[in-house]
Amino acid sequence: MGANSFGQRFVMTTFGESHGPALGVVIDGCPAGVPFDEALLRSELARRRPGTLTGRGESITSARAESDEPEILSGVYQGMTLGTPIAMLVRNQDARSLDYQQIAQTPRIGHADDVWKSKFGHADPRGGGRSSGRETVARVMAGAVAQMLLGKLCPGLSVCGFARQIGPLALSDQELGTLEHEPLTAHQIDAFAARFPSERLSKEVTELLVSAKQEGRSFGGLIELWIDGAAQNWGQPVFHKLKADLAQAMLSVGATSSVELGDGVEVASAEGSSFHSQRERPLRYGGIRGGISTGERIVLRVACKPTASVLHVAKAGRHDPCIVPRAIPVLESMAYVVLADHALWQRTDRL
Amino acid sequence: MGANSFGQRFVMTTFGESHGPALGVVIDGCPAGVPFDEALLRSELARRRPGTLTGRGESITSARAESDEPEILSGVYQGMTLGTPIAMLVRNQDARSLDYQQIAQTPRIGHADDVWKSKFGHADPRGGGRSSGRETVARVMAGAVAQMLLGKLCPGLSVCGFARQIGPLALSDQELGTLEHEPLTAHQIDAFAARFPSERLSKEVTELLVSAKQEGRSFGGLIELWIDGAAQNWGQPVFHKLKADLAQAMLSVGATSSVELGDGVEVASAEGSSFHSQRERPLRYGGIRGGISTGERIVLRVACKPTASVLHVAKAGRHDPCIVPRAIPVLESMAYVVLADHALWQRTDRL
Amino acid sequence: MGANSFGQRFVMTTFGESHGPALGVVIDGCPAGVPFDEALLRSELARRRPGTLTGRGESITSARAESDEPEILSGVYQGMTLGTPIAMLVRNQDARSLDYQQIAQTPRIGHADDVWKSKFGHADPRGGGRSSGRETVARVMAGAVAQMLLGKLCPGLSVCGFARQIGPLALSDQELGTLEHEPLTAHQIDAFAARFPSERLSKEVTELLVSAKQEGRSFGGLIELWIDGAAQNWGQPVFHKLKADLAQAMLSVGATSSVELGDGVEVASAEGSSFHSQRERPLRYGGIRGGISTGERIVLRVACKPTASVLHVAKAGRHDPCIVPRAIPVLESMAYVVLADHALWQRTDRL
Amino acid sequence: MGANSFGQRFVMTTFGESHGPALGVVIDGCPAGVPFDEALLRSELARRRPGTLTGRGESITSARAESDEPEILSGVYQGMTLGTPIAMLVRNQDARSLDYQQIAQTPRIGHADDVWKSKFGHADPRGGGRSSGRETVARVMAGAVAQMLLGKLCPGLSVCGFARQIGPLALSDQELGTLEHEPLTAHQIDAFAARFPSERLSKEVTELLVSAKQEGRSFGGLIELWIDGAAQNWGQPVFHKLKADLAQAMLSVGATSSVELGDGVEVASAEGSSFHSQRERPLRYGGIRGGISTGERIVLRVACKPTASVLHVAKAGRHDPCIVPRAIPVLESMAYVVLADHALWQRTDRL
Repeated sequence: MGANSFGQRFVMTTFGESHGPALGVVIDGCPAGVPFDEALLRSELARRRPGTLTGRGESITSARAESDEPEILSGVYQGMTLGTPIAMLVRNQDARSLDYQQIAQTPRIGHADDVWKSKFGHADPRGGGRSSGRETVARVMAGAVAQMLLGKLCPGLSVCGFARQIGPLALSDQELGTLEHEPLTAHQIDAFAARFPSERLSKEVTELLVSAKQEGRSFGGLIELWIDGAAQNWGQPVFHKLKADLAQAMLSVGATSSVELGDGVEVASAEGSSFHSQRERPLRYGGIRGGISTGERIVLRVACKPTASVLHVAKAGRHDPCIVPRAIPVLESMAYVVLADHALWQRTDRL
Repeated sequence: MGANSFGQRFVMTTFGESHGPALGVVIDGCPAGVPFDEALLRSELARRRPGTLTGRGESITSARAESDEPEILSGVYQGMTLGTPIAMLVRNQDARSLDYQQIAQTPRIGHADDVWKSKFGHADPRGGGRSSGRETVARVMAGAVAQMLLGKLCPGLSVCGFARQIGPLALSDQELGTLEHEPLTAHQIDAFAARFPSERLSKEVTELLVSAKQEGRSFGGLIELWIDGAAQNWGQPVFHKLKADLAQAMLSVGATSSVELGDGVEVASAEGSSFHSQRERPLRYGGIRGGISTGERIVLRVACKPTASVLHVAKAGRHDPCIVPRAIPVLESMAYVVLADHALWQRTDRL
Repeated sequence: MGANSFGQRFVMTTFGESHGPALGVVIDGCPAGVPFDEALLRSELARRRPGTLTGRGESITSARAESDEPEILSGVYQGMTLGTPIAMLVRNQDARSLDYQQIAQTPRIGHADDVWKSKFGHADPRGGGRSSGRETVARVMAGAVAQMLLGKLCPGLSVCGFARQIGPLALSDQELGTLEHEPLTAHQIDAFAARFPSERLSKEVTELLVSAKQEGRSFGGLIELWIDGAAQNWGQPVFHKLKADLAQAMLSVGATSSVELGDGVEVASAEGSSFHSQRERPLRYGGIRGGISTGERIVLRVACKPTASVLHVAKAGRHDPCIVPRAIPVLESMAYVVLADHALWQRTDRL
Repeated sequence: MGANSFGQRFVMTTFGESHGPALGVVIDGCPAGVPFDEALLRSELARRRPGTLTGRGESITSARAESDEPEILSGVYQGMTLGTPIAMLVRNQDARSLDYQQIAQTPRIGHADDVWKSKFGHADPRGGGRSSGRETVARVMAGAVAQMLLGKLCPGLSVCGFARQIGPLALSDQELGTLEHEPLTAHQIDAFAARFPSERLSKEVTELLVSAKQEGRSFGGLIELWIDGAAQNWGQPVFHKLKADLAQAMLSVGATSSVELGDGVEVASAEGSSFHSQRERPLRYGGIRGGISTGERIVLRVACKPTASVLHVAKAGRHDPCIVPRAIPVLESMAYVVLADHALWQRTDRL
């Protein structure tokens, strides 16, 4: 399998450079007969798109103006998937090669410009080429199709990510507790500034990011994903445990530096008889045991490094002071792809 | 690719149930001409094997007595690899089916007995079958071969893991700082109780685990891996970033619940201009940028859940009060396999 | 790997329906630094395109008018490959859905309309959807890139196909003998009617096909491929013998019904001491021994069934009375892809 | 996927050298719950094993004495598959390294000794190492498991091969016609000398092969495979057409030089309206259209080159004067593996 493919049954292959003609994806392995929901595709692309993410109208994300209009090239006929490869692309419209000319000479700190150049010898310096975060637009397209498929295979499944921490600001235990009892939908999360579901800190997070953007600063953050309604029995033993594939998926996204399942790093200090008997805290396992989904909520947490771009092109103002809000739909998309893959894979577990 | 295979160029396929006839691995993709170091194979197996891991002679690991004598079935001739598949196995000698008969009726809490049964319909209840930690013996065999290959492809490369935390006991910042300046070898780490490189807490960790074993308690822990001497340019863009493949490798091991690269979860609260300019802390990126190795030390941390087995079969005394000491060679092996895979993969990056 | 991908190192994934928006391919695994020869890409597409293939100006191929203008979407920058996926597509311009409306009701004999419908439940009836020969346009694009790569990896390599038989007309032994001693280039073959390199039968083959087209008849044929200048040592033992991968490649093309290597079916009646000692006939092995290229000429023969389309839509006149002339560049392209794949694969055979 | 693996859903990975400790296979992807028929496994191994294949008691195959006792190492519990990898091996007992010592110096004509040496630099000269026909014992083990699986997925399916030609001796049209109307089972075919189902030529074929063996001569031959009872809808579009995967499978076996489907090479001279309308000859398409099984009989023909070994080691008498009789169970096994693969693959074609 190629380096730019992901999945074993529901396989996506992505392509495209940040300032090349287009970015796209080919999905091979989506069964025939899935209603193709073009509105969902567009709304997921819109959720990833740079733009205003505050209640006050200021932009706290990159100002790169891309309409991300998807073209569906194959695999769909009369509104239903054909079982053949689904190819989709978005054109790059806002390709400003000039902004990046100097990168060819001076690699940006914290970016991959120099390592890609070192690796391949010949690299596209414009916007980081394929090492740009813009690459994730293809993942979101694939995630939307995975979501359509899962809508039929496992109705009621939902993946919902939110910002648990933005630099110095974190959800309180009380806020998390409330969320646990009354989970929000992705749509509801979208209504919060920076997808940080705190009424309490809404103003602070906005101010933090608006001023960071103006001042050329940036922040890391922590994303939590909740997968509800997943079926039992997804995941393959040993190397393709559901947690392993999810971990690969999450850490395949730029800027991420950790992935946790359930209690995550906290388990290091746990004592067993207490840990395993806490019946009131089923989420400590993260919904996966023996590598296989149990039907409980799957809980993932992913840390993101502070954006490095702001340091370099603050004037152009085309980068995000914190990648978390925009990374959320990307991680959700990756989770959908992993789940779709395993939902299909599971079909050959038994006679 | 099958669910029990791992790697794209250096591919291992493992097989075996805990109390079946044998566990083994087939390695497909190891180039011809690698000197086969059978002593290394045996010593790595010995490092994983249950047994005394304290200076005082008490056992703090499972008492299952397995000699883990490796048989090399193919792929090696006159002490050198042939470029053909290398098949290796170890026989199960201590198969006590009786101990586990009741499991078929009563799944063990915290184990995968019930989920595997649910998934496959028909499962081997003896010792957890293939969901047993014994499965990892095959990974260690593959890791040893990967290490042999890397010894030729990248002399000087080393992977060294150590316990950073065992339940309530953690290395101090000072101890970590000393380690950073004077790294220990895997051999030196092995001399510490529980592979926890602290003179200060040596006695405490031994007492903790010996008493835990006697009392049927268990502890989680945190493993840190340092990869020194890795070449630049390993890792494939997008989905097979080196960090992504390492994350999958680590979380494919049972009992693990998180993986961190470099500063890991701490980056969530970082501010960018500070984070990216800390020239004195090159390890914060973890030795990987843009998904590709930079030639710096690669730093990984993996949390392990407390063992669940102690709760159930304490009498039999065949399980580990903390999986960390024995998991270290397993995680090291997985890292070697990932690195060997990418060292070969990198050969087709350029003309 | 998905069903629409081919290759293990040089991996192509194709997509597209005959009358959908576009057909295309993503190539994953082409190393960085290959000069991208867009003229070659266009000329190979032109060689596959329907059109006049006689010296007299009559068309002996389908009259479907497609300009097959390639768009290169990614993976190429400043005329060189980047080591990232190369995505290319051609738009469908001559989509006449009406011609095919009735197919949805009445599947065409000898076509795959009914089997695809049976398989997927939901199929695109327009021009056979993805079962159409138009799908091969993506293979030709991939083959052109493989050819560019091999131009650097193995200068002097050439793949040249020709018609050995068109229905009742076959090259004579004398004509074949002349060819063997003075091989023609693909360019020279293109100058013959139906790519049938016989001065003697040039007029006959043209008349046969022109009249067949007018009368709604069709013919099978036999294509021979010569691969000259291939390096030694290509091919992987056991399942990916070079002959096995070439066989899969050839029989993955519609209308083909056999593939032969070297003496092919004739070996059935051969006696060993004679066969193996014929030093004057090195081609009897077909340039591959033990599954691995020997550096000698590789000789393949592929039989094609008579086109079925002529029976159904003769009036529309959009189909080929014999698929051989147009299948030749497709089979050449598949051969180039297999060779590029193995040229890269071979890089990890040895330390 | 590694070079020694075959299949996409039902994946076999084989290992072993001719005179190494063992040959074996790991099957990854066989669903749980398949009754494991060890008797079938043994009988299929026996069918491939060298030995007497004439009614008169003379041996017409290699005299290498191997009991081929299979060991099942994993994946089976209480007589049923577990859904985990099924590892099986046979030990090499008759390893006569001395016979082959000289090969290291003098490669054998018609063998792969020299090309493997050239490819890998370091090769096992004993009996050709992994290029030996003995490698096929692993395929037969995998084929037996595929057959067990298909016995549940597609009851009534059978693969039956027979010799259609042995050097100068061929079945007559009348004999073929009789077979077509009253197909024989594999068991019935086994009763014929050389698996050549002709009462008429039984004596001739025995005499031909017995004298060839004594005189150090050898013959090519033609094998025909009939697959009856295959389900509709097997095969994946484009690159994994059922015919393409079968072709790869057949030509992955040593000594083969062609594969034909249905009318095979004869279609080259066919005229379309006649070919496609011959309702009385449904087998001309070979049971596959558009790359997908139609439910009709699948007909394959494979040519085998004359054995080269007889030329070199006639004294030792350890080789076959014609490989056809022993290749038949190997090709049947490969067909079973391909069919099992596609039977599982087809499960994700549709919602």
